[in-house]
Amino acid sequence: MNIAMLGSGFIARFYATTLHAQRRKDRILSVYSRNTSHAKKFAADFGLNKYGSEMEKIIQDPEVDAVIVALPNHLHEEAVLACVAAQKAVLCTKPLGRNASEAKRMLEAVEKAGIFAGYLEDLCYTSKFLKSLASIKAGNLGKILWTKSREAHPGPHSDWFWDKEQSGGGAIIDLGCHCVEISRNFIGKSIRPVEVMCWAATQVHPIDAEDHAIGLVKYENGAIGQFEVSWTFRGGMDLRDEVMGTEGTVWLNSFLRTGFEMFTTGKGENYIAEKAESDSGWLFPVGDESHELGYPQMFSDMFDAMEQGIEPQETFYDGYVVNAILDAAFLSAKSKKWEKVIL
Amino acid sequence: MNIAMLGSGFIARFYATTLHAQRRKDRILSVYSRNTSHAKKFAADFGLNKYGSEMEKIIQDPEVDAVIVALPNHLHEEAVLACVAAQKAVLCTKPLGRNASEAKRMLEAVEKAGIFAGYLEDLCYTSKFLKSLASIKAGNLGKILWTKSREAHPGPHSDWFWDKEQSGGGAIIDLGCHCVEISRNFIGKSIRPVEVMCWAATQVHPIDAEDHAIGLVKYENGAIGQFEVSWTFRGGMDLRDEVMGTEGTVWLNSFLRTGFEMFTTGKGENYIAEKAESDSGWLFPVGDESHELGYPQMFSDMFDAMEQGIEPQETFYDGYVVNAILDAAFLSAKSKKWEKVIL
Amino acid sequence: MNIAMLGSGFIARFYATTLHAQRRKDRILSVYSRNTSHAKKFAADFGLNKYGSEMEKIIQDPEVDAVIVALPNHLHEEAVLACVAAQKAVLCTKPLGRNASEAKRMLEAVEKAGIFAGYLEDLCYTSKFLKSLASIKAGNLGKILWTKSREAHPGPHSDWFWDKEQSGGGAIIDLGCHCVEISRNFIGKSIRPVEVMCWAATQVHPIDAEDHAIGLVKYENGAIGQFEVSWTFRGGMDLRDEVMGTEGTVWLNSFLRTGFEMFTTGKGENYIAEKAESDSGWLFPVGDESHELGYPQMFSDMFDAMEQGIEPQETFYDGYVVNAILDAAFLSAKSKKWEKVIL
Amino acid sequence: MNIAMLGSGFIARFYATTLHAQRRKDRILSVYSRNTSHAKKFAADFGLNKYGSEMEKIIQDPEVDAVIVALPNHLHEEAVLACVAAQKAVLCTKPLGRNASEAKRMLEAVEKAGIFAGYLEDLCYTSKFLKSLASIKAGNLGKILWTKSREAHPGPHSDWFWDKEQSGGGAIIDLGCHCVEISRNFIGKSIRPVEVMCWAATQVHPIDAEDHAIGLVKYENGAIGQFEVSWTFRGGMDLRDEVMGTEGTVWLNSFLRTGFEMFTTGKGENYIAEKAESDSGWLFPVGDESHELGYPQMFSDMFDAMEQGIEPQETFYDGYVVNAILDAAFLSAKSKKWEKVIL
Ligand SMILES: NC(=O)c1ccc[n+]([C@@H]2O[C@H](COP(=O)([O-])OP(=O)(O)OC[C@H]3O[C@@H](n4cnc5c(N)ncnc54)[C@H](O)[C@@H]3O)[C@@H](O)[C@H]2O)c1
Ligand SMILES: NC(=O)c1ccc[n+]([C@@H]2O[C@H](COP(=O)([O-])OP(=O)(O)OC[C@H]3O[C@@H](n4cnc5c(N)ncnc54)[C@H](O)[C@@H]3O)[C@@H](O)[C@H]2O)c1
Ligand SMILES: NC(=O)c1ccc[n+]([C@@H]2O[C@H](COP(=O)([O-])OP(=O)(O)OC[C@H]3O[C@@H](n4cnc5c(N)ncnc54)[C@H](O)[C@@H]3O)[C@@H](O)[C@H]2O)c1
Ligand SMILES: NC(=O)c1ccc[n+]([C@@H]2O[C@H](COP(=O)([O-])OP(=O)(O)OC[C@H]3O[C@@H](n4cnc5c(N)ncnc54)[C@H](O)[C@@H]3O)[C@@H](O)[C@H]2O)c1
Repeated sequence: MNIAMLGSGFIARFYATTLHAQRRKDRILSVYSRNTSHAKKFAADFGLNKYGSEMEKIIQDPEVDAVIVALPNHLHEEAVLACVAAQKAVLCTKPLGRNASEAKRMLEAVEKAGIFAGYLEDLCYTSKFLKSLASIKAGNLGKILWTKSREAHPGPHSDWFWDKEQSGGGAIIDLGCHCVEISRNFIGKSIRPVEVMCWAATQVHPIDAEDHAIGLVKYENGAIGQFEVSWTFRGGMDLRDEVMGTEGTVWLNSFLRTGFEMFTTGKGENYIAEKAESDSGWLFPVGDESHELGYPQMFSDMFDAMEQGIEPQETFYDGYVVNAILDAAFLSAKSKKWEKVIL
Repeated sequence: MNIAMLGSGFIARFYATTLHAQRRKDRILSVYSRNTSHAKKFAADFGLNKYGSEMEKIIQDPEVDAVIVALPNHLHEEAVLACVAAQKAVLCTKPLGRNASEAKRMLEAVEKAGIFAGYLEDLCYTSKFLKSLASIKAGNLGKILWTKSREAHPGPHSDWFWDKEQSGGGAIIDLGCHCVEISRNFIGKSIRPVEVMCWAATQVHPIDAEDHAIGLVKYENGAIGQFEVSWTFRGGMDLRDEVMGTEGTVWLNSFLRTGFEMFTTGKGENYIAEKAESDSGWLFPVGDESHELGYPQMFSDMFDAMEQGIEPQETFYDGYVVNAILDAAFLSAKSKKWEKVIL
Repeated sequence: MNIAMLGSGFIARFYATTLHAQRRKDRILSVYSRNTSHAKKFAADFGLNKYGSEMEKIIQDPEVDAVIVALPNHLHEEAVLACVAAQKAVLCTKPLGRNASEAKRMLEAVEKAGIFAGYLEDLCYTSKFLKSLASIKAGNLGKILWTKSREAHPGPHSDWFWDKEQSGGGAIIDLGCHCVEISRNFIGKSIRPVEVMCWAATQVHPIDAEDHAIGLVKYENGAIGQFEVSWTFRGGMDLRDEVMGTEGTVWLNSFLRTGFEMFTTGKGENYIAEKAESDSGWLFPVGDESHELGYPQMFSDMFDAMEQGIEPQETFYDGYVVNAILDAAFLSAKSKKWEKVIL
Repeated sequence: MNIAMLGSGFIARFYATTLHAQRRKDRILSVYSRNTSHAKKFAADFGLNKYGSEMEKIIQDPEVDAVIVALPNHLHEEAVLACVAAQKAVLCTKPLGRNASEAKRMLEAVEKAGIFAGYLEDLCYTSKFLKSLASIKAGNLGKILWTKSREAHPGPHSDWFWDKEQSGGGAIIDLGCHCVEISRNFIGKSIRPVEVMCWAATQVHPIDAEDHAIGLVKYENGAIGQFEVSWTFRGGMDLRDEVMGTEGTVWLNSFLRTGFEMFTTGKGENYIAEKAESDSGWLFPVGDESHELGYPQMFSDMFDAMEQGIEPQETFYDGYVVNAILDAAFLSAKSKKWEKVIL
């Protein structure tokens, strides 16, 4: 595949590093950034011939097979609609929209256009997740009763995350989108989420958006999908999932306790991992950050699906459901009551 | 790369599964097995056009860029020499030889022929290993004093492993080759191993070869590389490494405690992992066995090195040093004294 | 101390085993059970001279220094009032009452009588808990933002637990009382709990009471104390606490992952631990169940406080606050809204 | 019991703290220290009426029931012989002697005198150890094939440890005595240790004695008891045991990974644990150091045995066997061969 990358920030670089590693055959062809010098730098770093600050031009390039949207949340819709206009396959990073109506417009646009569209929900592609999901589907846990997905770290790296207008919200939209979709997979995508109860607060950071939230999503079969999200956690990036079923239990730790432990007095140069808070004492690096977070597995599914003309595991419809659940969570955090999920 | 696979057993299938996954660009082209029906089956399973029971023919095929030797230990030399004769790049599974003289002949043959040769020591390519090695090289642990590498499981799957003539030995040659090379990397490949003390015994299985051994490899700078290998371990496959340096410590667990825990009453179908001993109660699957064991990372390094005309991280010379150390270990197990490593 | 034990069931035996171990100086003198033969058996097992089926008689015995109430929940009030009548120091197992009004009557009775009264909340006495609490009080975690306390197992051993009339409720009252008090300690006993949001359901067992619940308790300073309780968990007894503060994190595992791991094919006789679900495969016993659960530390505090004429760490007032919080939780589970804690 | 304590250093304080906690009935009555002001201070700290700098006087006091020897290694024999002369029960800290001949003299003296003598090998009394030993004796692991006991930390606190004349050796005698006795218990005290192979070196500290050693102890039934001891470990105190049997496995972690994890930026006052190397970042405290190390359980066994007129679990004979094994280890470290254990 020849890929056009929209955006040259944190996640664009992560995606590019993943794609150009491990002798994969799909290559990034071009990059868009509103700032030409950023685009040029990105192109140089990843060996791309083409770069530019005009999004449409990058997208419409006939050599491009697929476009990856790696822009801040408020630009996802615009970028997706540009892909629709150009009839290009589009892969959009999470969250799909800032809210369900935005997501719904994107979903309807790609469906109407008949283009391939994938939702880049990497945490539903980690190897631990895929293997435990298969195990659960094979019946090893019986009926799923409760799941918990937790993502917590000390806070994001770019200003726009903290601005509700651009982001759509704080930790709920940024981290909750992962947790909600993880739980939804474990409980079963065919089971309808019905209502949400959520607590949210701004406990630490001097911002408008919430920096900490807990939510319960109730499904029509009585199962509960709990999410715990925070930008106030100290100690690194905490990514854990738990599943309780009538016949068993699954506990996943994807980042802080993965069988890699290290103590150092602090000599030497040391990059530990995303959001790691210290570089001496006991440290818990991850072996391969990109793999542990599901990026390579996610792109394999996306491009395999494109080639085979089938849907990927995570679609725009999934992204839309996630947004609808999060809309109810935001409402509940204000109303202090359970709020219906409107789909 | 177009690859010819020699062998259609356990490791050949593991290699093939790895290579044909995750949208990698290198493909297996053909397979050799002494038994044509096995070759045919393998070819069908992995979508290969070519297969056969004549090793030379498979190797000499002009379309073949590289040959993978995935045959029992006593056939490594013959296969490597056939690649030399055909002037084909060769990647040989571990251990390189059954002993150092066999390994040395292979090393000299590929060097003389000037062909690319890689030693498929996957456990020196796991992401945890690579990251901790980088950290150690960056000085985070100070001077390395002692390392321990442990591989233990309930015993191998094929008969030939138990026959010293075909295998070259028991758990020492089968598992010790990994452990020795892991420790040697941590201590530093430029540091010469000088002597070995080893205890070995046949404690459980009705075989000639040892099923349990502990060895200490002393390096010229005083560092000790300990190996613990066993075919008598109960509980799965135990793959752990430890490193002690003047400034720090590394603990790696590559298989049994990797942040994936599961309890099941035993309902449903369940493949847990290589050597897992039970499918109910508390289980510790690995997310992606192949990745956790370093296979994809290893092949990336091999083919990248081939393309760039440089040496891979693990070479035939490394395989030869490992054999020399293990020769000393076997001697020591008998003489009950420290034995010199002859290089 | 000479102790009278009321009840001869599960917890009475656990308490007695604890008290008569490790060369402690306090002894059980007598036991009450409504069934004389049970009382006799208990007395024989623990070497007591006195036993009987008349509660008042046992309590009023002039030799008795302190009475332990180890009866089902609906009998706590009656037993406490009998101690008040006899002017005997009383230690009551958890939960103090089936609800706050019952607890309040007990609290007022002991206060009016001026007798020593202790609340046997063992999980606020585990060594891990005490040490982390001290660390938190010393400021190591900064301001506490969120705590989570989880207790989950496959369900209780006696029928009366399932009968709301006798128990006061299901998993919320049985397990939630522990979790609420653990969180309250971490957040600070002087901080007032203001409102509760709770989800509860009967997911698995054929009972009226809830067998699974999640609750959020909001404190006046904005901190949240989360409880997760379940009688539907598979895999043993899951006892975990987490604390997030502005300067740090605490994670405690009190039962299933305590540094004791064992694999067995199932040979031999094997008692693992309370609620353990299997006796082969990977097992996670606790070294000393009683110590890991805080019993010896709790009784030391109780009798030390009695001797010194001071309050123990856990008082009837604490038990009353817990009941008030749980009352709000039950209400919320029905109203589906946040409910005020009435103190 | 009324106890006389000989010594007022690190372990004397640890023992005293243990004995005077948790409402135990045995009390320290008096303390001997060669320095009167130290004795006085110790007496004040633990509420003792008697103290002094004359060892015999303290021992011969008719009120004394039992004497605890908590002096440096080279004074154990003298102190034990003084107890023999006074016909007082004696409990001696580890190691019993600096070598087997010293230990043998002590053993013969107490046997001849017919006094009660206990060997204070606390690590054979931890709750994890006792429970796993019971499980092993009940057959859950089948025949024991191999055990490993590891004790490693950054080095001791007092000068005399580093002086071979006073200590009898370095890490081997100081830490190896624990490891050897742990393994010997798991393998079976009735199985005779036959020979030892040991590597030892002074890798880091500017001392005569070894600061790092690995040893293999072979038993007459073919089982191997491995010890790993070091004064060069970074990261805290590493106390781990492993047992492999034909039917199962045991893994114990007694200090660094016990289900208590904490992250702190370093605010506040913080005592973590013996040998902890840092007080910020990820820390792994133990809940109750004394209990985790087996002290209370050990004294309970000792005094129970004294009262019942039976032998404690750990006797002077055990201490003597340990010394004999360590003598062989020292010899082997020099001769570089397996050395016979002479009993
Ligand atoms: N899948 C994941 O795990 C994951 C992780 C991080 C971020 N993300 C998502 O990726 C997207 C980008 O996040 P990021 O972390 O890379 O952010 P970032 O701030 O690091 O990068 C954002 C990029 O967008 C560009 N940009 C910002 N405002 C713009 C504007 N008004 N017009 C044009 N370009 C603009 C910036 O120059 C930059 O190249 C977000 O939607 C975020 O949610 C996903
Ligand atoms: N890197 C690793 O971690 C790893 C893991 C397993 C095996 N290995 C190595 O791979 C090699 C093969 O092991 P395996 O586990 O696949 O064994 P296997 O028994 O599963 O397969 C061996 C293959 O060789 C063929 N074979 C056996 N004897 C032969 C003969 N005399 N002539 C021709 N072909 C013959 C068999 O038919 C089979 O295809 C060994 O050298 C082993 O050490 C490496
Ligand atoms: N602290 C803890 O962790 C903990 C653990 C378990 C139980 N508990 C508490 O201990 C109490 C007892 O629980 P248990 O597990 O021992 O229950 P149990 O059923 O094992 O024992 C209850 C005892 O009360 C007696 N009893 C029952 N009904 C009676 C009646 N109507 N009149 C007189 N006696 C009666 C029974 O004969 C038995 O001796 C409960 O309040 C429970 O919440 C506390
Ligand atoms: N069981 C365990 O786990 C454990 C732990 C630590 C120490 N120990 C043992 O306890 C003993 C003491 O060790 P420690 O750590 O308490 O040492 P320490 O140095 O802290 O204390 C030693 C005590 O002996 C006294 N002392 C030293 N030299 C003396 C002399 N020549 N004459 C009279 N008194 C003298 C000191 O004043 C001090 O009171 C040693 O045998 C050691 O192996 C056991």
